Amino acid sequence: MPEERRARLSPDERRAQLIATGVNFLAEHPLDELTMDVLAQRAGVSRPLLFHYFDTRQGMHLAVVTTARDSLLLASEPRDDLEPRARIRDTLMRITEFVRQHQSTFHSLVRGIASGDPAVRRVVDESRDVNAGRLRDALTELGVLDTPELRVALRAWVSFAEETLIALVIDRDEDPERVVRFLERTLDGVVAATPELRA
Amino acid sequence: MPEERRARLSPDERRAQLIATGVNFLAEHPLDELTMDVLAQRAGVSRPLLFHYFDTRQGMHLAVVTTARDSLLLASEPRDDLEPRARIRDTLMRITEFVRQHQSTFHSLVRGIASGDPAVRRVVDESRDVNAGRLRDALTELGVLDTPELRVALRAWVSFAEETLIALVIDRDEDPERVVRFLERTLDGVVAATPELRA
Repeated sequence: MPEERRARLSPDERRAQLIATGVNFLAEHPLDELTMDVLAQRAGVSRPLLFHYFDTRQGMHLAVVTTARDSLLLASEPRDDLEPRARIRDTLMRITEFVRQHQSTFHSLVRGIASGDPAVRRVVDESRDVNAGRLRDALTELGVLDTPELRVALRAWVSFAEETLIALVIDRDEDPERVVRFLERTLDGVVAATPELRA
Repeated sequence: MPEERRARLSPDERRAQLIATGVNFLAEHPLDELTMDVLAQRAGVSRPLLFHYFDTRQGMHLAVVTTARDSLLLASEPRDDLEPRARIRDTLMRITEFVRQHQSTFHSLVRGIASGDPAVRRVVDESRDVNAGRLRDALTELGVLDTPELRVALRAWVSFAEETLIALVIDRDEDPERVVRFLERTLDGVVAATPELRA
């Protein structure tokens, strides 16, 4: 019966299904354990079919990590109807909530993928740039000058926030409201310090 | 002639020499390019001799990364004769100077080693804990409460500082005085925000 259902999927649907199986695996294991064999077994498909969809293990990893990353970015997309302050707060709250609900996926994205394959690492780094860019948009609306120094500071703060979320939300199950207040205040502190970098 | 000099080395000296060759390689290449073959060729020794000293490639990597890490920790060791504020500033200045002088080694330690082998990653993480602990010592001398929240904040700030050093010192060759002032101020901002985490 599953065979029959599978047969009705379009190539795009089948590909999406295989990626989803990989993302689920990533929620419980580090990326380097996700081999073509493991994915074929989990998805109940043959290895040749998997290679038909992804060419290489690297290609499969890129697809899985990109999808996991995009789910985080989508879950934390800024609400344009909110004022900048409220928007930052809302975005931080939703990232925190995502980390609570997808602890292992977040951990895999932030830690497990860090080096290994540079192409895969770039996928994760892109989301750091997106998050820094979102903060920059809200802060410049608040009158903060968009300088190269601000960009450096925000990108570094995103790494700070990742470490904080792992330690407070995943390791210590801390109250989300408190975590977000802490993140907001450290963000303000970092932004306030950027003029030190200017001549 | 080199043969003759080599012959006079004690086993400990020979091992140290092999590790030093690996650390030098790390200053120009990512860790995963440092194979036993490459190191044997660079050091002008046979593969069997290398395996005699390190057993496995992982063992060799651990020795090389530990030595590179320890050189950073040694270069930034706190001067106990300084008051806490001056000690933090001096330590940050010396880390910044180390990054200037050993850009690729620092980059390899922070970025290239991030995942891959968990044992190797742990070696680098240990130095993050050491640096966070040094800051904690100085801050508690200044009257800051040593809470679990402070420890989380300092560990996350160390990641912030690493990203900042890569962006400002390595990528942009920024004035070290300014970088250190920026690091000091963001550190203060993060410490000031930690009470938000308490009930």
